[in-house]
Amino acid sequence: MKKISITEKTKVKRLPKRGIYDFESIVKILDDSFVCHIGFVIDDQPFVIPTCYGRKKDKIYFHGYVGSRMLRHLKTDSGICVTVTNVEGIVLARSAFHHSINYRSVVIFGKADEITDPVEKTNALKIISEQILTGRWNDVRKPNEKELKQTSVFSIKLDEASAKVREGGPVDEDNDMGLNIWAGVLPLETVAKLPVKDKALKKDISMPEYIKEYKKRG
Amino acid sequence: MKKISITEKTKVKRLPKRGIYDFESIVKILDDSFVCHIGFVIDDQPFVIPTCYGRKKDKIYFHGYVGSRMLRHLKTDSGICVTVTNVEGIVLARSAFHHSINYRSVVIFGKADEITDPVEKTNALKIISEQILTGRWNDVRKPNEKELKQTSVFSIKLDEASAKVREGGPVDEDNDMGLNIWAGVLPLETVAKLPVKDKALKKDISMPEYIKEYKKRG
Repeated sequence: MKKISITEKTKVKRLPKRGIYDFESIVKILDDSFVCHIGFVIDDQPFVIPTCYGRKKDKIYFHGYVGSRMLRHLKTDSGICVTVTNVEGIVLARSAFHHSINYRSVVIFGKADEITDPVEKTNALKIISEQILTGRWNDVRKPNEKELKQTSVFSIKLDEASAKVREGGPVDEDNDMGLNIWAGVLPLETVAKLPVKDKALKKDISMPEYIKEYKKRG
Repeated sequence: MKKISITEKTKVKRLPKRGIYDFESIVKILDDSFVCHIGFVIDDQPFVIPTCYGRKKDKIYFHGYVGSRMLRHLKTDSGICVTVTNVEGIVLARSAFHHSINYRSVVIFGKADEITDPVEKTNALKIISEQILTGRWNDVRKPNEKELKQTSVFSIKLDEASAKVREGGPVDEDNDMGLNIWAGVLPLETVAKLPVKDKALKKDISMPEYIKEYKKRG
């Protein structure tokens, strides 16, 4: 099993038993979502911006408008932090103190590499698209030269990364076990509701199976 | 309507029509979630850590273990960024380029103020608890002195904040409207699944209504 090296930044300090450093576990968490939060610093001020991503092999890909503050900043080769968080339940203990959240999260540190070659860029956009909705890319009109020029695409390697996972039921103090308080877990799940077709949708276009059968990642 | 002043940091630059700066709209988005991502900087390196929060009046409250890296760092009075993102749907356009995500997000900049008074601290913990699961606080065993000492609680004011919202269907190029491609929105929603009771739950404790009738914020 591929291990990712543990560094001072990625080592889980609070509740270290929740720390996970093997590549397969990290990838599984990343593959169950498509929205990350990217942290970057301009003049000592941190910014945290949500964006979509796709994962392939040992890289995360993300994109945006070429003129966006974040993507312009990433060209300066400064260190960033990419965090993915899957919230999976509310842990209800007998004491307020032992309440918790069940979650699986990944934190990645590194520098973002810009992808400029049009073929590689298009491939990266396909990876992002397929992460959000597998099967969609084949159906749609692909990016043209003008659209590619308006889009910046970056990747970050899963070199310095760690995961943190909390699962299972509440852990209460022995003294509290006799209290008449309901305890357990309220699991949360993100689901798709009925698709809403575009008002201008042409007649006789049926809904693709990959939309009908969508299972949310995360 | 209370307006929050627009600063260079909070001004929405990319797609400015998506920018929202009034207090009520920002609060509505914050009240529909309970997980934020906090960005902070140590030695030029950004960190992005997910955590729970509660909102009351013009403040966000969050807490954690007193020894955690993040909370220890917040005592240094450095600038942070708190981001809340509610993902609400996948926008399926006819071209890859015009695919998008429907979302409502808030970004807050500022410094975190530590709350040390035990009564204020307990009130802040109640605000966080009630944001996660309204009705829970009344039922549970409240924090004792030892537990309060193990917990750091911070607030951040909604002084420098903005929201960004994308809603509605796809916006395609005129040239693409004739393509035989299904277009529309796949709405996403986070829902509660059946609660799982603790294995050690005493008999004859019925599940409270606020758990049965839980509606996820966000």
